[in-house]
Amino acid sequence: MRALVYQGPYEVAVQDVEDPAIQDPSDVIVRITTSAICGSDLHMYEGRTDAEPGITFGHENMGVIEEVGPGVTSLSKGDRVVLPFNVACGFCTNCRRGKSAFCLTVNDPGTAGGAYGYVGMGPYPGGQAEYLRVPFADYNCVPLPAGTEHESDFALLADIFPTGYHGVELSGMQPGDTIAVYGAGPVGQMAAYSALLRGASRVFVVDHVSHRLDIARDIGAEPINFDDGDPAQQITEALGDYGTDRGVDAVGYQATVSSGEEQPAVVLNQLVDTVRHTGGIGVVGLYLPSDPGAPDEHSAKGELLYRIGRFFEKGQTMGTGQADAKRYAHQLRDMIIEGRAEPSFVVSKDIPLSQAPDAYARFDKREDGYSKVLLHPGMD
Amino acid sequence: MRALVYQGPYEVAVQDVEDPAIQDPSDVIVRITTSAICGSDLHMYEGRTDAEPGITFGHENMGVIEEVGPGVTSLSKGDRVVLPFNVACGFCTNCRRGKSAFCLTVNDPGTAGGAYGYVGMGPYPGGQAEYLRVPFADYNCVPLPAGTEHESDFALLADIFPTGYHGVELSGMQPGDTIAVYGAGPVGQMAAYSALLRGASRVFVVDHVSHRLDIARDIGAEPINFDDGDPAQQITEALGDYGTDRGVDAVGYQATVSSGEEQPAVVLNQLVDTVRHTGGIGVVGLYLPSDPGAPDEHSAKGELLYRIGRFFEKGQTMGTGQADAKRYAHQLRDMIIEGRAEPSFVVSKDIPLSQAPDAYARFDKREDGYSKVLLHPGMD
Amino acid sequence: MRALVYQGPYEVAVQDVEDPAIQDPSDVIVRITTSAICGSDLHMYEGRTDAEPGITFGHENMGVIEEVGPGVTSLSKGDRVVLPFNVACGFCTNCRRGKSAFCLTVNDPGTAGGAYGYVGMGPYPGGQAEYLRVPFADYNCVPLPAGTEHESDFALLADIFPTGYHGVELSGMQPGDTIAVYGAGPVGQMAAYSALLRGASRVFVVDHVSHRLDIARDIGAEPINFDDGDPAQQITEALGDYGTDRGVDAVGYQATVSSGEEQPAVVLNQLVDTVRHTGGIGVVGLYLPSDPGAPDEHSAKGELLYRIGRFFEKGQTMGTGQADAKRYAHQLRDMIIEGRAEPSFVVSKDIPLSQAPDAYARFDKREDGYSKVLLHPGMD
Amino acid sequence: MRALVYQGPYEVAVQDVEDPAIQDPSDVIVRITTSAICGSDLHMYEGRTDAEPGITFGHENMGVIEEVGPGVTSLSKGDRVVLPFNVACGFCTNCRRGKSAFCLTVNDPGTAGGAYGYVGMGPYPGGQAEYLRVPFADYNCVPLPAGTEHESDFALLADIFPTGYHGVELSGMQPGDTIAVYGAGPVGQMAAYSALLRGASRVFVVDHVSHRLDIARDIGAEPINFDDGDPAQQITEALGDYGTDRGVDAVGYQATVSSGEEQPAVVLNQLVDTVRHTGGIGVVGLYLPSDPGAPDEHSAKGELLYRIGRFFEKGQTMGTGQADAKRYAHQLRDMIIEGRAEPSFVVSKDIPLSQAPDAYARFDKREDGYSKVLLHPGMD
Repeated sequence: MRALVYQGPYEVAVQDVEDPAIQDPSDVIVRITTSAICGSDLHMYEGRTDAEPGITFGHENMGVIEEVGPGVTSLSKGDRVVLPFNVACGFCTNCRRGKSAFCLTVNDPGTAGGAYGYVGMGPYPGGQAEYLRVPFADYNCVPLPAGTEHESDFALLADIFPTGYHGVELSGMQPGDTIAVYGAGPVGQMAAYSALLRGASRVFVVDHVSHRLDIARDIGAEPINFDDGDPAQQITEALGDYGTDRGVDAVGYQATVSSGEEQPAVVLNQLVDTVRHTGGIGVVGLYLPSDPGAPDEHSAKGELLYRIGRFFEKGQTMGTGQADAKRYAHQLRDMIIEGRAEPSFVVSKDIPLSQAPDAYARFDKREDGYSKVLLHPGMD
Repeated sequence: MRALVYQGPYEVAVQDVEDPAIQDPSDVIVRITTSAICGSDLHMYEGRTDAEPGITFGHENMGVIEEVGPGVTSLSKGDRVVLPFNVACGFCTNCRRGKSAFCLTVNDPGTAGGAYGYVGMGPYPGGQAEYLRVPFADYNCVPLPAGTEHESDFALLADIFPTGYHGVELSGMQPGDTIAVYGAGPVGQMAAYSALLRGASRVFVVDHVSHRLDIARDIGAEPINFDDGDPAQQITEALGDYGTDRGVDAVGYQATVSSGEEQPAVVLNQLVDTVRHTGGIGVVGLYLPSDPGAPDEHSAKGELLYRIGRFFEKGQTMGTGQADAKRYAHQLRDMIIEGRAEPSFVVSKDIPLSQAPDAYARFDKREDGYSKVLLHPGMD
Repeated sequence: MRALVYQGPYEVAVQDVEDPAIQDPSDVIVRITTSAICGSDLHMYEGRTDAEPGITFGHENMGVIEEVGPGVTSLSKGDRVVLPFNVACGFCTNCRRGKSAFCLTVNDPGTAGGAYGYVGMGPYPGGQAEYLRVPFADYNCVPLPAGTEHESDFALLADIFPTGYHGVELSGMQPGDTIAVYGAGPVGQMAAYSALLRGASRVFVVDHVSHRLDIARDIGAEPINFDDGDPAQQITEALGDYGTDRGVDAVGYQATVSSGEEQPAVVLNQLVDTVRHTGGIGVVGLYLPSDPGAPDEHSAKGELLYRIGRFFEKGQTMGTGQADAKRYAHQLRDMIIEGRAEPSFVVSKDIPLSQAPDAYARFDKREDGYSKVLLHPGMD
Repeated sequence: MRALVYQGPYEVAVQDVEDPAIQDPSDVIVRITTSAICGSDLHMYEGRTDAEPGITFGHENMGVIEEVGPGVTSLSKGDRVVLPFNVACGFCTNCRRGKSAFCLTVNDPGTAGGAYGYVGMGPYPGGQAEYLRVPFADYNCVPLPAGTEHESDFALLADIFPTGYHGVELSGMQPGDTIAVYGAGPVGQMAAYSALLRGASRVFVVDHVSHRLDIARDIGAEPINFDDGDPAQQITEALGDYGTDRGVDAVGYQATVSSGEEQPAVVLNQLVDTVRHTGGIGVVGLYLPSDPGAPDEHSAKGELLYRIGRFFEKGQTMGTGQADAKRYAHQLRDMIIEGRAEPSFVVSKDIPLSQAPDAYARFDKREDGYSKVLLHPGMD
């Protein structure tokens, strides 16, 4: 089959690879109809990870079941499904509690969590390909209505919609709360959108890319451009109050300031200032225990100067980590089916799989129109 | 009346001060029967705060109501009460949600939270004195059974028992969980004890003072001496598992390592190692946004090198802040009355108020028998 | 001052009564700008309670502070406020937990909860009058922006908006859930509206009055007319599933069936059928321990034939009781201020206080346009 | 193999039946070391259900894995395991939320939940036999330490310990709360014991069998004999307060009063009286939608006269249903391993499987020493 394969830094190619096959009784094979390119794919693309050439990328996958293992109970050939990016077993300590992003079964001992097509996340090829093997399929497949309706919305259930939602959940948001979302990329947009769906009274979105801030305004949030001054101060003034009830970090360790300089802790520390006493912070932007390309020796080990004194004084809470996408995917799916949610407003382009290498290059340069690309193997 | 008054660094004296009087209709005056010396009093005593001479110390107070303001509804002269250290109004945004440690009414605009006898916590004299004025008395007094029974247990309801309990609550502990408590001082002991009362399966207590570790063993916890090697590794080995479900920091920014060197972030970072993926950390040890005596320039601003990369990778949560002592005092009181809890095992000495200056000096030198001293103005 | 006073069954009159005065230091006097007539006022109006002639009605009140007691901290003359219908102290066991509808201070020993202008709810005259005394004012007043904007929306914060919201909260609803609301009167509409604000995927509203069902459709709910057949079956068929995740009873003991016959338990039992296994039911429709006008001897004692066998088999939960309006009023106020919520769509008429007797008579006959009347003493 | 087989009302026999075999890839076969007789087995034994002759009884099972299906991931031959009584899939809507007692996969469409050896709970033979087939084994097996230690404690993890714990959980109990448990049979004892493990301040246990009440006293609860008068009143007087914070019904529909008369709703209604305003009731005693042997026509349909008026007035909550034993079994197992819990104090006798028919007969007559019998096929 055709698949997008990593060749080395800044190089991916669509090439022939072996078809996936049923390996375990609980597997299914899915024919991919849509697989999205994710910002976190760029970490590998740019060579800032340990990814070796040969990996098939793609952890935001959906499609139609092509083949079913003998141990699968609830699925049949022809079923349309979306696959939360976390490969998980469903029965370990963490899965049982809904923490499927930290499955203790699907990766090496001492680690937690698996994913399709991602370095360090277990031996699971990605779905930017014609077919995908899905282990523990009864648990890992989220069933969808047959047909092609809502394809772009459903595709976002694999990662960014649940990830944005998870950021809001980690912050402890309640209806009526005010909330600040740092980062207006696809995940930040999904966080802001989730906050609105859950009844936030005011949602601030912080970035400095104006067309991203325009999208935030369009969905009902209030844009804050950090090129115009300290975002925490701008938000506090807009509020006329001590700070927002909640905050979400949808940026992570590659945070930059107006000058373009990378300052890994800047968003975390701005959130401490932005959120009021007793408020909560949800972190879904990525932080790593090891980053060879970091601006200094401590950041390289994932140690950042965090304003813990002020954080403690304010009695804030912080929840972190990769989203348990499976935990939210069903309820968000139902909101899409009923027309309550339409997250596909963040999708910028639909292209055939064959055009993926070009799309990676343009996305990496932040070209307009490539912020959220959906690949469709069937369009070739 | 007689009261313990701060004279300057390393000097306190019992002297005559003006009797407190009803100032607002909601006030009561309490005749103090017991007021404890707290580790956080030493911050002022040692001159490591902005405290000015003239402050009467004492935020762990109990006694009998002597006089009742005309706006008080539920209390009468002669009622025995304990006073959670947080002065709070009961009706602001934070108090309504039970976050009485962050009351928005009782201190200056822009700050949150008040306390008796503490610098920066509002204009409320402390209770290491014969009498104490209690504002918003209906809210701030926790009624006790008449008499003198359980005096030492009830005195701990003002601060350290609820504070230890709060650490466990912030960690998200559930019955059956394993938990590690860093620090075997009075608050750490109360955290370990609270975890056991709530059904923890295993409780580890980390310190390097052997008699403190003995107390931990006596109540059913497992002592870990950090002089014997990395505590996170010791705990992981004892568990035979990835890490504890929960952790509590009962040390704070004055954490030291085996050599005696102060390393403000060492406990926080050890907790990240100690607690397993998806686990929770509760921080009740104090961290400050400003510490002139800190070992380096960043610590002086409350910015510490925190292992955020690993914290995120493990998907941990952290809750922080001063305890809302009021929130727990009633239920813990009921456990004492029914004989389910007897926290006074941490009390090391009962002395008259007149001996307080000597006790401060000895406590500051960590002399044996002075780790938790109860002052009794009536013993003079 | 002028006030609406109960004269006896089916008779109310606007007459002169004594002006309220500050009685306790924590009181304020509010000049009423709006006071709504509530369906529960009709219980007294129709003589189906123990209400004695002389009571001033009105528990849904808002206005401007006219006079402030010496023990009041946070309020000033001229402040615009809305008063949650529950009179509460803010410091008893129940108030501290947010259960202000069950305050243990403001009513007789052995009872719980107080209200303005309601039989059995303590000695507090109602606000269908020019002025109202508000005890424990710091706790009982919810501050509003100055001016007259959103007057009708804010007025609903006193009772029906929080009450509808409480029904949803008691049901345990999460975003994405399906929910069925029985009763399309003002409280049922508010419950359906609250469910939508909180991200319900589908909301069914059951009634048999067509113009009420039309309103439900207008806000985005799905109307179910029980004259067309068993509502549980209609909903199950519409869902194509086992049942809704959640249900709300906004009808209470005066439930009727298509024939018009009163069957006190019919809604509760239909909810057991409507809601799926493991689902939750929130009951805000009124049930009473004593109802002299009940259709049978058991109902007269508040004992109803409840389908407990099926309820248990399905593993459902049920939460009940008067709403703690104070608990929700602040967050719902903020949603109104920010334009996220506009509950005044249920208001049918604004009239001067002097026309209240006529409005009661017409409301009691369920005349069109009298389902939710706001009285304005200042319009006279 | 040898198995205990139902022959008809009041008749069971140990006879040869076919050995179980792996049917699905996710199955394991367990060699039973212990299987307990449960009070709910008597419903079938007495012929008060639709159970047909030929059923092998036994839903409280533990043992050692003998054979492993090819789709099983986490288990090996020789592993010691206990089997929560609910057969469940681990991936349906309800299982994903931890509601494994209401699995939507393992039983007929329209029903929820499966169990070993129980009428109406799916096609799963029971474990009062030498061997047992366990479907979805990765999910349904709870691993235990190798060996024979704690055999009696671990056996109770299959049902009654989690069921008692679930009753407390459904009631919403917090540490420091007071709680009343109705019924001092094995499940009631486990509920009282669980409440104590979780930090209840006072636990009342209501029954009228004196040796059961003695056991309750021995574990630290306060016995209430309902032959001595209304239990709600006795508890209220002992408390000197409005009522307990929480209550558990561990009796169910076969509740009797002092005279011996069956009154199906008596415990539910006494709980409404016993529990205070805003309190919670957890119901784990069984109620059925159909009971041919009921004392009246309504009870026969599972419709009971419930004091809903008073329940609503008090603003109470009620949670019901079979326990999701899987949800609690791991944490309770850890408490047993660490010596925090030793639930086997309720076990009255250990006998070989061959003596089971005699034990059923004696248990059915409530003979002393037969209240909780453990069968051991290996003892024969």
